[in-house]
Amino acid sequence: MKLRFLGTGDARQVPVWGCHCPACERALLLSTYQRTGSCVVLTLAGRNFLIDAGNTRLAERFAPNELAGIFLSHFHADHLLGLFHLRWGQGEPIPVHCPRDRVGCADLYKNNGLLDFRPIKKAFQTQSFALSLDAVTQPQTVLQVTAIPLNHSKATLGYCFEAEGQKFAYLCDTKGLPAASEEFLLAWQPDLLIIDCTFPPGLADAHAANHNDLTDVLDLSARFASAGQRPSICLTHLSHQMDSYLMAQQDCLPENVWLAYDNQEIALEHGNTHQPRPLN
Amino acid sequence: MKLRFLGTGDARQVPVWGCHCPACERALLLSTYQRTGSCVVLTLAGRNFLIDAGNTRLAERFAPNELAGIFLSHFHADHLLGLFHLRWGQGEPIPVHCPRDRVGCADLYKNNGLLDFRPIKKAFQTQSFALSLDAVTQPQTVLQVTAIPLNHSKATLGYCFEAEGQKFAYLCDTKGLPAASEEFLLAWQPDLLIIDCTFPPGLADAHAANHNDLTDVLDLSARFASAGQRPSICLTHLSHQMDSYLMAQQDCLPENVWLAYDNQEIALEHGNTHQPRPLN
Repeated sequence: MKLRFLGTGDARQVPVWGCHCPACERALLLSTYQRTGSCVVLTLAGRNFLIDAGNTRLAERFAPNELAGIFLSHFHADHLLGLFHLRWGQGEPIPVHCPRDRVGCADLYKNNGLLDFRPIKKAFQTQSFALSLDAVTQPQTVLQVTAIPLNHSKATLGYCFEAEGQKFAYLCDTKGLPAASEEFLLAWQPDLLIIDCTFPPGLADAHAANHNDLTDVLDLSARFASAGQRPSICLTHLSHQMDSYLMAQQDCLPENVWLAYDNQEIALEHGNTHQPRPLN
Repeated sequence: MKLRFLGTGDARQVPVWGCHCPACERALLLSTYQRTGSCVVLTLAGRNFLIDAGNTRLAERFAPNELAGIFLSHFHADHLLGLFHLRWGQGEPIPVHCPRDRVGCADLYKNNGLLDFRPIKKAFQTQSFALSLDAVTQPQTVLQVTAIPLNHSKATLGYCFEAEGQKFAYLCDTKGLPAASEEFLLAWQPDLLIIDCTFPPGLADAHAANHNDLTDVLDLSARFASAGQRPSICLTHLSHQMDSYLMAQQDCLPENVWLAYDNQEIALEHGNTHQPRPLN
């Protein structure tokens, strides 16, 4: 399976509107450093799934029948802005797996259009999706997905994906992890964690109670290490403060920890002996 | 004063995602025919005001201190999607004049950031904005704005703008006009009406009860004519059905009625003897 990031920024994005910090200036000059709202494409057996939909230009990338489903972490605007346009498309309904959230976002439930919201009934329960278009002539590819609760200001789910012998978890947005979710992950033994790391260490920010900083992520990495595991850890939902911090602190990340960038692609291949890392 | 359209489509936009009607095919081939969410820039005495903010790429056009204010017709997503990014900018607060709407949209009230929401206290009451940056050496430019109620599925205001001897009204979204609003407009004698004309005549659509079709607009034009007035009428909030209809029915619009397009500019100049029309 392949992953492509279509949005790796926090709600403010990078560049922040009107900001002249080093990270925002760099992103204004070099578009590869721009970060839009959270969105990842998972491609497996010729099918595309979105994990969050914070990118507002999804219609330019996919036809309606090219999206097999969407996994939505939560109903904050920066994770779903792209849905406001997609919902009015023409084609078959698109399943949107999401947390149980009575309110949702704006009028998405009322005017759902193409979007078929399917609240996850129970966390820690694995759903299987059989993907082959022609099960007679092709070996069946199965995607297994387990939703796990996260710590955020709104009902939020992480998703643990398993296919072709590879496992990755998308853990965004969250501050730390609920004990049961961390316990699940340690037992599950992921190859890759894609995780909220909005802030540099110790930043005083109004949103710091709802998002990891780098210390939170490195502490989690250490707990995996204590259990004899060393998953590849990909940082996402990055703020301009986090980018500026890393511009000033070169080489401060351990070898298994790295940054996501918009448009970056990652291959998770069966029998990989090395850790999943970006292709570009 | 000058107007520039940054979004002239309905909530579905043009092209509609996955649609292959003549209007959507044309917009896919020729980007000048694309229509994004409702947004107009009013420029006067070096100041920019947004009328609605449905364009999601506003940060690329303006720095925070380049926006003197925003007039929001209502809190539907396609009229304000751009605010979800702008709110997190850095700079002085931006006044957002808007209808009284207890709910607003998503968490815009709770996490308003730069946006200073100022609900209009009373319709039909004129507010004056003095615009000159240096009132000692420059003659003072005054923008007068009067909000009038519209007919829509959510609390919605039209805005009547007057400056430099020119008058235009932005009437979007609406189905017909409340009697008091139409009475006000007939007495006010606008040079230009920018008006919701989402649908071609007689289209059966789930949203037809909340938006004008071409018949509604031509009927309004006739009532102005009966009062001895012939304002320029600019159609906006256009659906792909309306564009397709007009592609098939060439020359079906009277001379004073014309279509808005994204990126089109209109000059409203003091002492104009001709009707306001697009520059490009």
